[in-house]
Amino acid sequence: MGEIDIPRAVVLLSGGLDSTTCLAIAQATGYECYGLSFDYGQRHRVELESAQKLALQAELADYKVIPVDMRGIGGSALTDNSIDVPESESEGIPVTYVPARNTVFLAYALGWAEVLSAKVIFIGINALDYSGYPDCRPEYVAAFQAMANLATKQAVEGEAISIETPLINLTKAEIINRGSELGVDYSLTVSCYQADTKGRACGLCESCRLRKKGFEEAELADPTLYV
Amino acid sequence: MGEIDIPRAVVLLSGGLDSTTCLAIAQATGYECYGLSFDYGQRHRVELESAQKLALQAELADYKVIPVDMRGIGGSALTDNSIDVPESESEGIPVTYVPARNTVFLAYALGWAEVLSAKVIFIGINALDYSGYPDCRPEYVAAFQAMANLATKQAVEGEAISIETPLINLTKAEIINRGSELGVDYSLTVSCYQADTKGRACGLCESCRLRKKGFEEAELADPTLYV
Repeated sequence: MGEIDIPRAVVLLSGGLDSTTCLAIAQATGYECYGLSFDYGQRHRVELESAQKLALQAELADYKVIPVDMRGIGGSALTDNSIDVPESESEGIPVTYVPARNTVFLAYALGWAEVLSAKVIFIGINALDYSGYPDCRPEYVAAFQAMANLATKQAVEGEAISIETPLINLTKAEIINRGSELGVDYSLTVSCYQADTKGRACGLCESCRLRKKGFEEAELADPTLYV
Repeated sequence: MGEIDIPRAVVLLSGGLDSTTCLAIAQATGYECYGLSFDYGQRHRVELESAQKLALQAELADYKVIPVDMRGIGGSALTDNSIDVPESESEGIPVTYVPARNTVFLAYALGWAEVLSAKVIFIGINALDYSGYPDCRPEYVAAFQAMANLATKQAVEGEAISIETPLINLTKAEIINRGSELGVDYSLTVSCYQADTKGRACGLCESCRLRKKGFEEAELADPTLYV
């Protein structure tokens, strides 16, 4: 063989602040990165356009946008236009929760990682400044990892695929600081759940509020365009 | 409330012998059944047509065919025309294994089950007369269940969704006997990995061989149409 193989990673890329930082970390760690985005009928379509621009800029080894029919299933403010995106704090798990979203995304990533013989999957979830979604918690990720260790031919024949969550215990400010050090241009990222077609953020939804607070706490200028 | 709620179940339906039997069992158990099939670019397209006919006949509460892009990922004889379906026994996990297929299917089922407030998901996998796929083993199902218990709002707020695998420890002959008792018409089911457009089976691939042996051991006439 002789040649030095660069280890491969599948990186989930939504076009938001977290996943873009996560990609920068994966690249800085030395992985050859394969980007994966999902067109799941999300209300904030501009997020997906942003992901595509960021993927191009990052010079990924490959990049796929997989259509997944979550509007067919419904049940979330992000995939059902009849449910409004809340613009103030709410109790419990918010209506922007999309049923089984991270499980569907990670399942696809697992399949692609296996085909690529990739060693890891990077997902930019975090459990501090987040919306309380059940599938963003460390115990969920650990359980997905345990399942993945039994699910694939690659795992059964010797090498399991590792799910990496480098942001999981960081605050939003820490994420922004880390990404800024790595040269992430946050003006290209879209976090707002109801961004307009030009990518301008509402400034009111939970995702906007967490992002704003992050820039404030990081003591960095917020490059977000607001309506 | 006063009314008697019939518990709901999401049932994965491929159009094959196992999932059709599984649906019959779910209905006989008293569940209101919601059928779910996947168009994943499978080589044996007629299997999906068979699923649609069976779903219609079963008078399901609802039925969805979800397109999932597994050809984009590749890596299997079932989704990549450049890999031949083997017509004799092979060592280890066969090339008809589709990376992370059951994980993707169960992830979607989990999302839909949550939206429907369904209590269970039925999947007709079995681990006796089967092809050795890692994601058909009892330990895989148990790990998916553990993950699902942490993944959804429904589980976190009180009621987890149970993954039911009534066929998992049955031989193919036992599955056929159980289905026959419940009135399943196996002539409508397609198991062959390379069935022709009329649904006629090759009789040679592993799926055909397991099915044939099942009818022989069940001492029932095999209604399969062969080429």
